[in-house]
Amino acid sequence: MTTPTITTDVHTAVSLHYARQVQMLDSGRFEEYADTFTTDGEFQHTPGQPPARTRPGIVAELRRFNSRFDNDPVQRRHWFSMIDLRTRDDGALDATFYALVLTTRPGVKEPVVGPSCLVHDVLVVDDSGILNRSRRVDHDQLLR
Amino acid sequence: MTTPTITTDVHTAVSLHYARQVQMLDSGRFEEYADTFTTDGEFQHTPGQPPARTRPGIVAELRRFNSRFDNDPVQRRHWFSMIDLRTRDDGALDATFYALVLTTRPGVKEPVVGPSCLVHDVLVVDDSGILNRSRRVDHDQLLR
Amino acid sequence: MTTPTITTDVHTAVSLHYARQVQMLDSGRFEEYADTFTTDGEFQHTPGQPPARTRPGIVAELRRFNSRFDNDPVQRRHWFSMIDLRTRDDGALDATFYALVLTTRPGVKEPVVGPSCLVHDVLVVDDSGILNRSRRVDHDQLLR
Repeated sequence: MTTPTITTDVHTAVSLHYARQVQMLDSGRFEEYADTFTTDGEFQHTPGQPPARTRPGIVAELRRFNSRFDNDPVQRRHWFSMIDLRTRDDGALDATFYALVLTTRPGVKEPVVGPSCLVHDVLVVDDSGILNRSRRVDHDQLLR
Repeated sequence: MTTPTITTDVHTAVSLHYARQVQMLDSGRFEEYADTFTTDGEFQHTPGQPPARTRPGIVAELRRFNSRFDNDPVQRRHWFSMIDLRTRDDGALDATFYALVLTTRPGVKEPVVGPSCLVHDVLVVDDSGILNRSRRVDHDQLLR
Repeated sequence: MTTPTITTDVHTAVSLHYARQVQMLDSGRFEEYADTFTTDGEFQHTPGQPPARTRPGIVAELRRFNSRFDNDPVQRRHWFSMIDLRTRDDGALDATFYALVLTTRPGVKEPVVGPSCLVHDVLVVDDSGILNRSRRVDHDQLLR
């Protein structure tokens, strides 16, 4: 049985937070993406690597990661779904959800599908909206 | 940082609007789909073609487009996700979101995946619910 | 035109119900999954087979079904989307939505995609949250 303690206001705010966040990421607006994290935010998207820290650190990591596409133009799309939200003792939120990356190349109708991931976020809510305090991305193909 | 100005009521109404709209489309109820647009609504789903206009015009365009499946039975599914909503100056809503088409053929468990698209809707809200004033679908494989 | 009669509270509760339910299923917590159904709940996920009934019956069916992966380790992910909700005359909810199964194998970045399904749930709402009274899963590849 589920006993939600998440308000509708928070649920709506989180949905919009993620919609805007992935659209920033997928259009290469890395500074804007980093600004969706707290100033001391942590972002780990590559298994086995230490997280990027602070907004400038997150931008640098995204530039490094995406340089692989410098001579391979793609349109990536990050889909998040099945977002579970739980209130933490410190008042922040644990968000646990599925993520799937779709990568489309010019002229090719069928995107490359994957990886499929499980994402763990800690979100903080303040008057101005939602921010990520941290993100950790676990890749399904590495789970076993 | 995200500063949502979208109410929970509107967020819920938009979610249900899209759920019902795609289920009408994917079950071939094109008249019902067209009725989710305003009477002067515009619908452009094929890049480089002018939009269909008015409800009868939208029905005609959907019949034309789907005639390609007359001798190729398929079950298509339109998935919408990562829906960003912003209030426009005229009181309507800009909705920008990801769409993915899945096409299943009889006896084949794995659907054909794609195209992956970015959709721009203008939505109007009235007492009776949500209607599309317009829809423009951009295909990821044509972006570059 | 859509005329939602679903409250934002119910919409949020249903979203969290499904997020938690699929995460239980995909991490093999079948007892917890079964507890998201009413004590007399019905669960039919295989076309042409009678539904499993009661929570112990649902657990047994999930164990039977998943034994196919005993020597084939996978991480499955059930994605639900485009969830239409309608109030029933008996006060319960009809939920009709799309489901897609993604199956990732160790070391393989691209998951197997499919089947694509249409799911029909009856949900009951009480003070403690949402429960499934029934679930019926229709597979797209069998529709024609």
